[in-house]
Amino acid sequence: MSFGVVVVGAGYWGPNLIRNFMASDEWELRGVCDANVDRARAVVGKYSTVPVTGSFDEVIADPAVDAVAIATPASTHFPLAKAALEAGKHVLIEKPIAASEEEAEILVAMADERGLTLMCDHTFCYTPAVTKIREIIASGELGDIQYIDSVRINLGLIQHDIDVVWDLAPHDLSILDAILPVNNRPTAVSALGADPVGAGQACVAYLSLPLAGGGIAHIHVNWLSPVKIRTMVIGGSRRMLVWDDMSTTQRISLYDKGVELSESMDSEQRSQTLISYRTGEMVAPALQEREALRSMVTEFANAIKEKRPPLTDGRAGLRVVQTLNAATKSLKNNGSLITLEGQ
Amino acid sequence: MSFGVVVVGAGYWGPNLIRNFMASDEWELRGVCDANVDRARAVVGKYSTVPVTGSFDEVIADPAVDAVAIATPASTHFPLAKAALEAGKHVLIEKPIAASEEEAEILVAMADERGLTLMCDHTFCYTPAVTKIREIIASGELGDIQYIDSVRINLGLIQHDIDVVWDLAPHDLSILDAILPVNNRPTAVSALGADPVGAGQACVAYLSLPLAGGGIAHIHVNWLSPVKIRTMVIGGSRRMLVWDDMSTTQRISLYDKGVELSESMDSEQRSQTLISYRTGEMVAPALQEREALRSMVTEFANAIKEKRPPLTDGRAGLRVVQTLNAATKSLKNNGSLITLEGQ
Amino acid sequence: MSFGVVVVGAGYWGPNLIRNFMASDEWELRGVCDANVDRARAVVGKYSTVPVTGSFDEVIADPAVDAVAIATPASTHFPLAKAALEAGKHVLIEKPIAASEEEAEILVAMADERGLTLMCDHTFCYTPAVTKIREIIASGELGDIQYIDSVRINLGLIQHDIDVVWDLAPHDLSILDAILPVNNRPTAVSALGADPVGAGQACVAYLSLPLAGGGIAHIHVNWLSPVKIRTMVIGGSRRMLVWDDMSTTQRISLYDKGVELSESMDSEQRSQTLISYRTGEMVAPALQEREALRSMVTEFANAIKEKRPPLTDGRAGLRVVQTLNAATKSLKNNGSLITLEGQ
Amino acid sequence: MSFGVVVVGAGYWGPNLIRNFMASDEWELRGVCDANVDRARAVVGKYSTVPVTGSFDEVIADPAVDAVAIATPASTHFPLAKAALEAGKHVLIEKPIAASEEEAEILVAMADERGLTLMCDHTFCYTPAVTKIREIIASGELGDIQYIDSVRINLGLIQHDIDVVWDLAPHDLSILDAILPVNNRPTAVSALGADPVGAGQACVAYLSLPLAGGGIAHIHVNWLSPVKIRTMVIGGSRRMLVWDDMSTTQRISLYDKGVELSESMDSEQRSQTLISYRTGEMVAPALQEREALRSMVTEFANAIKEKRPPLTDGRAGLRVVQTLNAATKSLKNNGSLITLEGQ
Repeated sequence: MSFGVVVVGAGYWGPNLIRNFMASDEWELRGVCDANVDRARAVVGKYSTVPVTGSFDEVIADPAVDAVAIATPASTHFPLAKAALEAGKHVLIEKPIAASEEEAEILVAMADERGLTLMCDHTFCYTPAVTKIREIIASGELGDIQYIDSVRINLGLIQHDIDVVWDLAPHDLSILDAILPVNNRPTAVSALGADPVGAGQACVAYLSLPLAGGGIAHIHVNWLSPVKIRTMVIGGSRRMLVWDDMSTTQRISLYDKGVELSESMDSEQRSQTLISYRTGEMVAPALQEREALRSMVTEFANAIKEKRPPLTDGRAGLRVVQTLNAATKSLKNNGSLITLEGQ
Repeated sequence: MSFGVVVVGAGYWGPNLIRNFMASDEWELRGVCDANVDRARAVVGKYSTVPVTGSFDEVIADPAVDAVAIATPASTHFPLAKAALEAGKHVLIEKPIAASEEEAEILVAMADERGLTLMCDHTFCYTPAVTKIREIIASGELGDIQYIDSVRINLGLIQHDIDVVWDLAPHDLSILDAILPVNNRPTAVSALGADPVGAGQACVAYLSLPLAGGGIAHIHVNWLSPVKIRTMVIGGSRRMLVWDDMSTTQRISLYDKGVELSESMDSEQRSQTLISYRTGEMVAPALQEREALRSMVTEFANAIKEKRPPLTDGRAGLRVVQTLNAATKSLKNNGSLITLEGQ
Repeated sequence: MSFGVVVVGAGYWGPNLIRNFMASDEWELRGVCDANVDRARAVVGKYSTVPVTGSFDEVIADPAVDAVAIATPASTHFPLAKAALEAGKHVLIEKPIAASEEEAEILVAMADERGLTLMCDHTFCYTPAVTKIREIIASGELGDIQYIDSVRINLGLIQHDIDVVWDLAPHDLSILDAILPVNNRPTAVSALGADPVGAGQACVAYLSLPLAGGGIAHIHVNWLSPVKIRTMVIGGSRRMLVWDDMSTTQRISLYDKGVELSESMDSEQRSQTLISYRTGEMVAPALQEREALRSMVTEFANAIKEKRPPLTDGRAGLRVVQTLNAATKSLKNNGSLITLEGQ
Repeated sequence: MSFGVVVVGAGYWGPNLIRNFMASDEWELRGVCDANVDRARAVVGKYSTVPVTGSFDEVIADPAVDAVAIATPASTHFPLAKAALEAGKHVLIEKPIAASEEEAEILVAMADERGLTLMCDHTFCYTPAVTKIREIIASGELGDIQYIDSVRINLGLIQHDIDVVWDLAPHDLSILDAILPVNNRPTAVSALGADPVGAGQACVAYLSLPLAGGGIAHIHVNWLSPVKIRTMVIGGSRRMLVWDDMSTTQRISLYDKGVELSESMDSEQRSQTLISYRTGEMVAPALQEREALRSMVTEFANAIKEKRPPLTDGRAGLRVVQTLNAATKSLKNNGSLITLEGQ
C-alpha cells in the first residue's frame, strides 16, 4: 500500500521532490501542480505519465491525494498548507515552514487538532552524515557537548527580500535541532553581520548560540565566497567530531583526546603536546551513499503510517523560525543577546 | 658589523630565540640570562661558548649588549623592558607586550623619547605565509576586504591566570594588525565565550570585529580541540584567500570569483552556479620555507640599523593589548559591542 | 530534429544510458530492449511511456530507430553490433568494444563501408576533467609529456572470466588514447601482476607503456583496496598536472616548475629547493559540473549529424583492445615488453 | 656513560648528524672531520666548543673516539669505513653503504669478525611513521601483505654519476627491508625507466618487486616533479594502510574492508559497494613528533651497548645495494625480471 502525493511548485526544488517520490515504493505520485502549467509539464518531461495541473483546489479536492508537498515561494507556504490541512491532507513544506512564528504556530495547531502529519523538509537532517552524527551524539560517544561550530559559505545570489541568515542559517539551525538532545538546545542568540557590498542587508553573518548545557554553538553564513565550505566541528568532553561535507572519502572524522593537558605535566611533556598536530587517534566511520531526499520521503510516509511526529516535524520548523526572528532582532541591536523562549 | 644581544628567560620560548640569534649574521649572542642559572646553562648546552648569568642588572650594565630579548612571564615584561630602555638598550618582548595598556603606553613613550627600538615578537607576522598575505593585500589583488575569518583551535593548557582569548587571540590580532591597511582596522569588538569544563574562565571564544571599511573580522579561539586547526579565510571583492597553516603543500590558496551571480541569470545558469563547488580558478603561490623567527631577528636588526619602526613595533603590541582588554569587557557583557578608540 | 535510439541491456549500466538519452534534446528514446522484459520494465519504471521489448530483431527492424546503444555482457557485443550495423543502425557499445581484436576490426570495417557511426562508450573521456586535460595538453601548456601515472584502485568484484587488467585498465587506456596526440601514443607495454588471494588471475597489476615521444605511461589497477583512489599525474617539460577524481573542489591541479635545478646552483640554493614541498605556483582551473554520459550522448548525436568520427570511435575501442591483449601477453611472460603495432 | 663519536663529512647531511649527536645524552661529539677544514668550522659555528680537523687518520687514532659517522660522497664510503673498522671503531654510514656489493660484503664481514657495530643511516626507517608501520605489520593487523605501492617524486638534481633509481629508491628499498618480515622479502625486480629530458640516464623509473609471500611491491621514483609526493600504500588481507608523508595531521590511515564483495551479493548490494568511496571504517593513529635522526643515533648507541645488530645494520645496507644492482640490470634489459638471490 502506498500514499498518493502531489508536488506543488515546479521551480528550483520541485524536480528533486518529484524524482524521489517517483522512486519510492511508499508513494504514488498523483500529479504536479504549478500555476504555470507549462513549467510543470516541462518538469515531468515528455516520457512521463504523471498528470500536471494548474489548480491547487483540484489537488486538495482529490480523494486519491493523501498528502501534498509544498515547494513554492516562502510567502505562499501558509495559505497553501492551511488549505491542505483543512482538506484533510498531510503536508510537507520546504524550509522555512512559514514567514512568521504566528503562521507556523497556526499550522502546528491545525495539524495537531486534525491528527495530520505536518513535516518540514529540512533536507540536510536526512543526509547519511547528519544521521550518523545524531547516532553518535545520542550514543554518548562525544561526551558533553562543549561547542559546535558550523561554516556554510559559498557564492550566493544576493537577494532583496531575505538576508543571508534567512537564506542559509535554516540549514544549520535545523541540523542543530535534529542532533542536539532536547535539554541542550540553544537558549539565546547573538548575531553580527556585515554588508560589505552595499546590498541593503547582511551578506555575511555570525550567530552565537549559548546552549542549555553550558556549551556554545556558532554559525558562519556567507554569500560572498567563490568556493563552497561546509564544515561543522562538534567538540565534546570525550571526543571531537569534524564533518566536512565537501569531502567524498572522509566526510566525518572523530578525534580522541588521547591526553589530558595538565599543569602537573613537566614542561617537556607539555611542549610535546602543544606542538603535536593532534593528540589522539582519529576514526572516520564509513557512510552509506544515499540521497537525503530519498530518506526524507520515506520518513514522511512512515510518520503518517505510524501516526508519530516525523524527525523534522512542524514544531522543529517553528523553532527554526523563532531562532531566525531572534537573530534578526540581534542583528539590528549590534549583536545583543536575545533569549529564545519556550524551546 | 653585528649587534650584541642577550636573551632573557630560558623557558618555553627562549631556546628558539637563542637558536635564531646564533644563526644570524646580524647578531652576536652575548649571553643568556635566567634567574635559574642552571636552566640557562641547560638551554645553551654543553658544547656552547655562550655565557649564562642570573643577573639582569649585569646584562643591562654591559656596554657590549646593544639589545635584550625578553621571553619571561608576561607580568615581568614591564619592569624588565623599562629597566632595559632606561639603560639604553633596544628591546624585543614576547607577546603580550605588557599586562596592561598603561604599561604598554609607557614603554612605547620611553622608546620614542630615547630613540630606541621597541619590538614585540609577534612571531606569526614573520612566517612566509603572513608575509605573502601582506603582499597580496597590499597589491590590491583581493579588492576590498569583505570578511576575515580566523580559526585557532587546539588542545591547550587550561590556565588559571588568563583565558583563551588572552592566550591565543594575540596571534590572530597581531596578524590582522600586520596585514590590514591602517584605514581598515577593527573599530569595535564583540566577544562571546563558553566555559563548558568549569575552568573558571572562557575556554572557547568567538570575537567579531567590524572593520573601518565596512567588512568584518572574526576569530574563533579554543583550548578544547584534540586536533590543531589553524585557518584564515580572507574574502575580498575580487578574490578570496584561504590560509591553512596545517597544510604543507598548499598553505595559501587564492580563489577567483569566476562569475558574478545576478538576478538576470536564467534559472539554469543560477542553479548551475549554486551547485558548483567553486566558480573560478584557484591559484596557490609557492612559499619559501623559512623559519619565522629567523626573519624576525633580521627585522629587529634592520629596524635598529635603519632607525625605523619594525613591522611589529611597540604600537602594534599596544593595539593588541587594547583589543584584548575590550574583548574581556565584551565577554563580561554578553557580547555587547565595545568600541576601539584611537587605533 | 532528433534521432531515435533504443537502449539494449537493462543491467548495471543501461539505466544510466536511458536516463541520459531521455534528458537529451538530440535523442528520442524509442525503447528499452532486454531478453528479460521484466527487468527492462522495472528499469523504465511505472511512470514511463517508453516501450520495452524482449526482441532485438524487432528493434533493428524498426525504421524509427536510427541507433542502438549496446550495454550487454562483453561477449554479446559483437553479434549485436554486427546485426545492428547490417540493419543500417548507428551503434554505441560499452567498453570493451568486443572480446577480440578480430571482432573489433570487423565492426570498424563494417561501419566504415556503410558510412555509419560506430562509437565506444569510453565514459571517462567525457568527464569535465578529461575534457579539460585534453584541452590543456593540446594547448601545449604542459610542454613535452614526460610521464603519465595513473592509479585506479578500489574494492572490486573478483571475477572468474576477466582479470583486473581487462576490468579496470580500459578506463585508463581509453583516457590515454583520448588525451595523447596521435604521434605520442604508447609503443609497447610491460605488465606485471599479482594474485595474492588465489583468485586464479591477477587482482593487482602494473602496466608500463613507453610513449613514442620518449616519455612513459604507467597504470596501477587493483581490486583489493577498501578505499577508492583515482589519480592521474601527467608530467610535462613545462608543467605537471595532477587529477584527483575523488576531490570535489580541486579535481585538477597544475604545477609550475618555478625553478630549474642545476649543478651551477650553490649548495644552499640546492638544499633550499630540495626541502621545498613544491617549487612553483599551482593553479586549479574551475571545472563545470556536468554528467559525462550527458556529453557522451551529445557527441554520439553530433558525430552522426556531422558525419565525422566521434571522439571515442571504433578505432579507439580497437586500440584499447589491442593494448589489453598485449598486456595479457606480457603478464604471462613476466613483464617482458610487448610491442604495440600499427597504433 | 656516553660514547665518543666524530662526524666525517661536513656537506649536505653532516650538519644534521652533528646536531643530533650533540642533542643526545648517549653520545659525546668529539669532533667534525672534513678535508675542507673551513667547511667543518663553518658547520660547527662560532659558538661551539667542538673541535674540527682535516685528518681522518687523527680521528681513528684517537682512543676517545668510539665511533665514526661517515657522511662523505658514496665512492669514499668503503675506504673510510674499512680504515675505521680496522682501527676498531664502530661505523655509521650514509646510504648507500658502498658503491658495490663486493665492498658492502667486505665491510659486513669485517665488522662481524671484529664484533663491531656497522650501521647504515637509512634515516626514513627511524621516522615515527615507519616505526608505527613496522609495529602494525608485525602485529598482524593488516593480515597478509598483498601489495605495497610507493611513490617518491620531486624536483631532483639530474646527476651525471647516478640515475634516479640509485638516488631515490634506496629510501623505499630500505623502508621495505625494515617493515617486511624476513620471509616476505622481494624475490626479484623488474625496472623500466625513461629519460625524457635527454639526461643520459633514467629520470623516471618504475620498479616492480614480487614478494616471497605472493604479493607485489612497486616503487615509482621520479626527478621531474615540481611538487613532492611521498606516499606508500600497503594492502593487506584485513586492512589497507596509507602513508602520506606530506600530511601533517593524517600521516597514516588504516582502512578496514568493511565488506567482502562476492558474487552471491545481489546486483543492488554490488553496485552500492562499487559506488562507495570506501567500504569500511578508517583509523588514523596519533604519531609522536620526533626527529628520525634523533632515534637513529639512539639506536646506534643502543646496538653498541647491547652488542646486537641495529635495525638498519650492514646486511640491510647490503641488501639494498644488491637490489639496486639488479634494478640497473633490469633497466638495461627492458624490464626483464631479475632474481634476487640470498636475501
